[in-house]
Amino acid sequence: LVTVAGKGMMGVPGIAARTFRAVHAAGLSVSTIFQASSESSIGFTLPESDSAAARHALRRALKEELAAGLIDDVTSRSGVSVIAVVGNGMAGTPGIAARVFSALAAGGVNVIAIAQGSSEMNISFVVNSSDAPEAARRVHAAFQLSKRGGGSPAATDGTDVVLLGFGGVGRALARQISSRGRGHGLRAVALLDRSGCLFDAAGVSNRRLRELAARKGKGASLVGLGGLPISSREALAQVSEHAVSRPVLVDVTAEDTTELLLEALAQGFDLVLANKQPLAGSLRGYRRLVATAAALGRQIRFEATVGAGLPILDTQHKLAEAGDRILRIEGCVSGTLGYVLSAVSQGRPFSKALGEARERGYCEPDPREDLSGRDAARKGLILARLLGYAGPSPRAESLVPARLRPLPRGRFLERLPSLDRAWQRRVSTLAARGKVPRYVVRVTASRVDAGLRAVDRSSPLGSLEGTRNLVLFKTRRYSSEPLVISGPGAGVELTASGILNDLLALTRG
Amino acid sequence: LVTVAGKGMMGVPGIAARTFRAVHAAGLSVSTIFQASSESSIGFTLPESDSAAARHALRRALKEELAAGLIDDVTSRSGVSVIAVVGNGMAGTPGIAARVFSALAAGGVNVIAIAQGSSEMNISFVVNSSDAPEAARRVHAAFQLSKRGGGSPAATDGTDVVLLGFGGVGRALARQISSRGRGHGLRAVALLDRSGCLFDAAGVSNRRLRELAARKGKGASLVGLGGLPISSREALAQVSEHAVSRPVLVDVTAEDTTELLLEALAQGFDLVLANKQPLAGSLRGYRRLVATAAALGRQIRFEATVGAGLPILDTQHKLAEAGDRILRIEGCVSGTLGYVLSAVSQGRPFSKALGEARERGYCEPDPREDLSGRDAARKGLILARLLGYAGPSPRAESLVPARLRPLPRGRFLERLPSLDRAWQRRVSTLAARGKVPRYVVRVTASRVDAGLRAVDRSSPLGSLEGTRNLVLFKTRRYSSEPLVISGPGAGVELTASGILNDLLALTRG
Repeated sequence: LVTVAGKGMMGVPGIAARTFRAVHAAGLSVSTIFQASSESSIGFTLPESDSAAARHALRRALKEELAAGLIDDVTSRSGVSVIAVVGNGMAGTPGIAARVFSALAAGGVNVIAIAQGSSEMNISFVVNSSDAPEAARRVHAAFQLSKRGGGSPAATDGTDVVLLGFGGVGRALARQISSRGRGHGLRAVALLDRSGCLFDAAGVSNRRLRELAARKGKGASLVGLGGLPISSREALAQVSEHAVSRPVLVDVTAEDTTELLLEALAQGFDLVLANKQPLAGSLRGYRRLVATAAALGRQIRFEATVGAGLPILDTQHKLAEAGDRILRIEGCVSGTLGYVLSAVSQGRPFSKALGEARERGYCEPDPREDLSGRDAARKGLILARLLGYAGPSPRAESLVPARLRPLPRGRFLERLPSLDRAWQRRVSTLAARGKVPRYVVRVTASRVDAGLRAVDRSSPLGSLEGTRNLVLFKTRRYSSEPLVISGPGAGVELTASGILNDLLALTRG
Repeated sequence: LVTVAGKGMMGVPGIAARTFRAVHAAGLSVSTIFQASSESSIGFTLPESDSAAARHALRRALKEELAAGLIDDVTSRSGVSVIAVVGNGMAGTPGIAARVFSALAAGGVNVIAIAQGSSEMNISFVVNSSDAPEAARRVHAAFQLSKRGGGSPAATDGTDVVLLGFGGVGRALARQISSRGRGHGLRAVALLDRSGCLFDAAGVSNRRLRELAARKGKGASLVGLGGLPISSREALAQVSEHAVSRPVLVDVTAEDTTELLLEALAQGFDLVLANKQPLAGSLRGYRRLVATAAALGRQIRFEATVGAGLPILDTQHKLAEAGDRILRIEGCVSGTLGYVLSAVSQGRPFSKALGEARERGYCEPDPREDLSGRDAARKGLILARLLGYAGPSPRAESLVPARLRPLPRGRFLERLPSLDRAWQRRVSTLAARGKVPRYVVRVTASRVDAGLRAVDRSSPLGSLEGTRNLVLFKTRRYSSEPLVISGPGAGVELTASGILNDLLALTRG
C-alpha cells in the first residue's frame, strides 16, 4: 500500500494525475486506489515486489512538491492484503457495507483502507495480511457464502427453528408458531421424527405446518408426509449446509440426545430443550453441553423442563442476575404425586386417589414410574446444577414399597389397596401436628433430594391442591418469606408455551 | 460522480493515469476517487458544473479504448453528495466503519461509493443528495458529535443510569449497582434529589456511590455532598448535553412526573419506573407516555410498581408474547391490608391487627391511607392498562367507615376498637361458609375493581398469610387452574431488585 500524503496537497490540482502517470511510466500496474475526500493523501495497492520501484518513481516525479513541503512523504506499507466483496445484487441494497464492516469489527479486525467502486458491485478493503484469513472468514460467514442459498444481499433477522420430535408437544409448538402469523421472527424450517426429516430451506408455511401437525396427530409419519427417511444426524447436517438465519434446534424428545446436541452446537445452532435427559444425565455430559455452548458463543435454554410454561428458570436467572443469592429452592414438581398426596391428605384412600389419577390420564402406563419420584428428582437436579451443584444424581424416595416393585403391573395394581391403611395412619398422625405429606424436591448448591416430607398445612407447599406445581425460592433478599411460583406444570400447550418463550428470548438477543 | 467503466479495463495498464491526466488537462479538480480492486471501473467526484467537461475530456482521451470495447462508457451521475467522516483517533481503531455503515443501514440509506484513505483518518462515501442530510444526521448521532465528550472512536455498550430520587429505594438501588463491580454494563452518571443534582459524565465510581448513599441516608442532601442546586428539568438537560451511553432515567419518586418523563424520552432516555403516579394517573397522561416512547423508539419498564421484585409484569408480558390470552388477573397487592385481614381471619380483633401492623412499620403515618385501598387500586389499574383497559380509574372500597373519615388522626385511632365487633361477626359468618375476607383487585381488559371479597379459605388467595402479595393469572391456557406468583411485595431491597432487573433487560436489548 503506497501512500502519497501531505496537508499541502489539498487544492493543488493534478497530483492524482501525476501520481498515476509516474507509476504507469515505471511500468507498474495499480490494483486498488484509496483516496478520501480530504485530498490530503492518495493511496494505491500493487504487488509487494513493485513497491520500492513505485516509491522511487513517485519521489522523482513529485520532487518539487516534496521540496516545497506540499507533500510530506511517499511511504509504503508492506504486509497488507486487499479483500474484495463482489456481487451483482449489491447495487442499490442498503446495509451491505454495514454487514461487511460489522463482521470485521466483531472480529476486532482493523481496516486500513476502503474502496467501494461507484458501480456499487464491489467493496474492497485493506487489512494487515495477518488479519486477512480471519477477515475473509468473517465476511464469508456474515453472508453464509459456503451455504446453499447463501450470499443473499438482504439481511435476515428471524430465527429458523428445527424441531426434533413431532409428538404432542412438538405439534402444539408447531400450532403456536403457525398461529403467530407472518413476520413475527420465527420460522419452522425442519421437522424431525423417528421416520425422518421434512426440510424446507424457505420455511414451512404456517398453513402447511398446521396441516402437518394435524395429519401427524392422526398417525401419519413425516416420511409419509413428504419427508426424507434420514437420521436426525443426517438431517442436521443437511440443514446446516443451507443458509439459515439464526438456527435453533428444539429438542422435545425424551431420549439422551447429548451427542446430537453437541453436533448441533458445533454447526451453529442455539438449543431449546423440553427434554430433561441431556440436562439430568451424567455431570460430564451436562458440562460438555454447557462448556461447548459457551466456547462457541451459543445459547442453551430449557425453561419447559421444570414446570412447563411456569417462569421458574427465568425467575431463578433474574434473581441471580440482580445480585441476589439463592439459598434454597423447594418444590412440588410432580403433578401426579401432588394429585395423589393432596387427595390422600383430604381422607381419600391411597388406592382410590391413584386410580383417579390414572383415569384422568396423569400417570405413565405403569404408575410405579410416577410413584418412583424419578421425574421430580430430575427436575431438582436441573435446578441444582444451575446453582452450581456438582454432586451425584439425587436418589429419589419411592412411594412403592420394596416388596411391590418386582411384581408384574397387573399384580401391582391389584395389591394397591393393601397400602391404604398405612397411608391413612400416616396422614392422621401428621394431621394431629397440623401437617400434611407432600413429595418435595429440596435443592441447594451442595445438595439435592427428592422425597416425602411433612409440611405445615398452611404453608405454600401444604396448601397446594390437585396437580398444581409449586416452586419456592429462599434467597438472601427473600429470606423470611420465599418467592413462590405455582400453577399447572404439565400439558402439551403449556410446555409448548415455555418453549416458545425461550425461542422468543433467543430471537431478541 | 463520473465513472469510467468496462470489463476490458482489467489488466490494461495506465487507464487510471490517462483518466486523471485527461481530467487535469481539462483544468478540472477531482475531490474523491473511488475504485474497487476489480479494476473494472474507476470513479471520481467533482462539482456538478464540471461533469460535462470531464465526460467530454475523458471520451476524447480514451477514444481508442472506447472504440476497441475495452471501456464500455464514461458516465456521470448527478445529484450525489460526498460525506466525509474525519478524526485523528480513527487510525488503528477497529469498528469505526462498522458504526458508520450500521448507522446508515439503520436509516435505509444506500451507499453508492466508499473511500477510506490509507491514512485511516477519513472515511468518505457517496449518497444521493436527497439522502445526504439523513446520512449526516445518522452518523453524527452514532458518534454523539453534538454532545460534550462525544466523538469517541471507541464504541461504548453500557447503560448510563440517571436516578431521579435518592430516598430508601434509590439508595438501595445505588448499593446494588455498586456491588456489581466494574464492567457489568451499568453505570450511575447522575443522582437527583429535591436539593439538586450530582452529575459525573465519566460515571460515579462504585466506591463513591456507596459513600453517597450512606451519607444521604444519614441526612445529607446531594447538594451538601457536592451536587448543583438545580431543578430536575435542568439536570436532565445538562445530562443530555453530554455523550452518554444508552441513558436510562430511573424514577423512584412518588410524584406526578409525567411532564419530566416526556422530556426525558424526547432527549433519548429509556425509562424505568418504580413510581406508580404517572402510570396510574389520567389515561391521557399514560397514553402520551406510551405513544411518545413508541414514536421515539424508546422503552418504558415498570416491574417494581406491582409487587416490588416479584416477576409479575414480566410474566404478564411473557404470557401475551407466547400467544396466550389473559382473561382475568386477581391479586392481593397490599401487604398492609393482607397483614390486617389474615390476622382478623385468624380471630385477632381488627384494632389489634392494625396496631401490630403500625408497630411493624407496615403503615403510612395515617393508616386510613392504607385502609382506603387506593394503593392497591392503582396497581390494579397498571395491570389493567397493560391489558388494554381504557376506562376510568377504579374506585377503591375503603375499610374506613364514612363516619370515621373526617376525624383527626388521633381521634380516629382512639375509635378503632369500635370496629372490632362488626369485623368479628363478618369473619365468623364467612368462616361458616369456608371463606375468609381478602382485599382483592380484579382486572380484565374492560373492568378493574378493588375491594373486600370473600374467598375460599383453601384457594391461593385464601391461604395467603401476613404481608405476602399474590397475583394470579387466568388465561386461555391457564383456564382451569391459574398461574400464581406470590411473595413479599414491598421493601426497599426488593423494589430495587425489580428496578435492577428492568435495567438489565434494557441493557440486553
